[in-house]
Amino acid sequence: MAETVRLYEVVLRDGLQNEDAILPARAKIDIAHRLVQAGFKDIEVTSFVRPRWIPQLADAAEVVRGLPDAPDVRFWALVPNQVGLDRALEAGIGHVATFLSASETHNQKNVNRTVRESLEGLRRVVQTAKGEGLTVRSYISTVFGCEYEGPVPVERSLELATQLLDAGADEVALGDTTGMAHPAQVIDVLSRYVDAGIPLSRISLHFHDTRGTALANVWAAWTFGARSFDGSVSGVGGCPYAPGAAGNACTQDMLYMFDQMGVRTGVDLEAACEAGDQLEALLGRPLPGRYHRYWQGARQRARARTA
Amino acid sequence: MAETVRLYEVVLRDGLQNEDAILPARAKIDIAHRLVQAGFKDIEVTSFVRPRWIPQLADAAEVVRGLPDAPDVRFWALVPNQVGLDRALEAGIGHVATFLSASETHNQKNVNRTVRESLEGLRRVVQTAKGEGLTVRSYISTVFGCEYEGPVPVERSLELATQLLDAGADEVALGDTTGMAHPAQVIDVLSRYVDAGIPLSRISLHFHDTRGTALANVWAAWTFGARSFDGSVSGVGGCPYAPGAAGNACTQDMLYMFDQMGVRTGVDLEAACEAGDQLEALLGRPLPGRYHRYWQGARQRARARTA
Repeated sequence: MAETVRLYEVVLRDGLQNEDAILPARAKIDIAHRLVQAGFKDIEVTSFVRPRWIPQLADAAEVVRGLPDAPDVRFWALVPNQVGLDRALEAGIGHVATFLSASETHNQKNVNRTVRESLEGLRRVVQTAKGEGLTVRSYISTVFGCEYEGPVPVERSLELATQLLDAGADEVALGDTTGMAHPAQVIDVLSRYVDAGIPLSRISLHFHDTRGTALANVWAAWTFGARSFDGSVSGVGGCPYAPGAAGNACTQDMLYMFDQMGVRTGVDLEAACEAGDQLEALLGRPLPGRYHRYWQGARQRARARTA
Repeated sequence: MAETVRLYEVVLRDGLQNEDAILPARAKIDIAHRLVQAGFKDIEVTSFVRPRWIPQLADAAEVVRGLPDAPDVRFWALVPNQVGLDRALEAGIGHVATFLSASETHNQKNVNRTVRESLEGLRRVVQTAKGEGLTVRSYISTVFGCEYEGPVPVERSLELATQLLDAGADEVALGDTTGMAHPAQVIDVLSRYVDAGIPLSRISLHFHDTRGTALANVWAAWTFGARSFDGSVSGVGGCPYAPGAAGNACTQDMLYMFDQMGVRTGVDLEAACEAGDQLEALLGRPLPGRYHRYWQGARQRARARTA
């Protein structure tokens, strides 16, 4: 039987929150429909942070109301705290993601709290969410390095992961927020997690391609046994508080790699590229994903031949 | 003792031959000087193909005459055939590279000969070059797939590699000409070569990033034991006969990865980025390499802070 990999799509949240353009809710809902049709089963659609923090996602409730009726798809929303969770519950989303950083400086700049304060608050948010029957993911940012502090000891993120999973989180997403990770490090970090008793089945890898290493990191994690990866269609995204961060790991580049390896993703590469076309038109700038760019060129040449 | 990797820099040949802009010899010579100062020890500087085939490199002899006096650096030039080799010898280059394709269609389109005809001609070119005391590399294109023919059986490139090495070539460079390779395939191909008795020390990997897999392929090859990789500063380059091909594997992205892993490259990442800046200015377009883009952004922010 073919191996499978889980792709967790973040373009509507991590992607859009880092674009200058603010898309109308209708456009986001259209993209969500496309993503479902393309075969994505985990789609992070918005964030219930304060609207004035991230105006790009201020229409969170409206987006959630417009999501397709797809019982086999998990739609996720980011929640920063109890207030955000309340808004998410009211909107009726079934899957929420908390976030904090393994680096003190990054966490302070991101949410104006110490890591310890964030952890205490989020443990309660996780417990409440689980009590309400939601699925919970907990992002840990800057696991592989911090633009402000440099290297981040594995112990720091590992302690946070352990505590959040103990509090009831279903999975942790290890974030390379500023794209500093390299493949040997990825394997080292995952080994430490596994040695500490956290199974790979409860870990997703969230890479950014700032320095070009995202797909190499995905491959390294895959060889170690990781089977869940975050990606963004056509590589949209970054981190507004991390200077220089380029896009997320590009979904289509991962799809191409896994398709070629005979690993089942459940997602149609062509359909993902069509979603990328729509995003590119909406955002009004060429997007960084490599495969999408190749695909656009190939289509152009095919049209020229048949014209 | 730290491990080392060999980076073979192709921006002045594979990079420039795929750009619309034609740079003056003076600019190329300046770049060559910069590359030497940055620490590169293998630099492919030009091609002795017919000038009207690749007008971007029509000034081959002039470029070779202007190269810095650097006895510890190997300067390489591409030679298509005996006529090209004669021109290369006359110009006084010490290291030459032949090329042919493992795919019949690609070879026909590239040099208008069958693979068999190319092989016979190149065996003689290799022997002559070795007789003249030159070092010889033999490129094999489309090892990992062909845009026209699809998958290319490993046996085909393996037979060519074996014959070219038997004829006296010092190394073969396995080309993923159109960027179709994926990491699992890279390991599979290398295994087949090693099983056939070709040592990794005589193989260099020449990846293109068309579909975003270049650095993942480099990492995969590294884990298998390969220690020589071709790259292009800031990802300039492609293949004029392969539709859709984007740039070569980006040198700075590789440098970042190897630096972080503690692997010695001998090349200064910052100096490579400065060479990339110069190339970007000369070519008049943003270059695709990720690390270089990140580095430009970081520098801009640093200047804004101190302004």
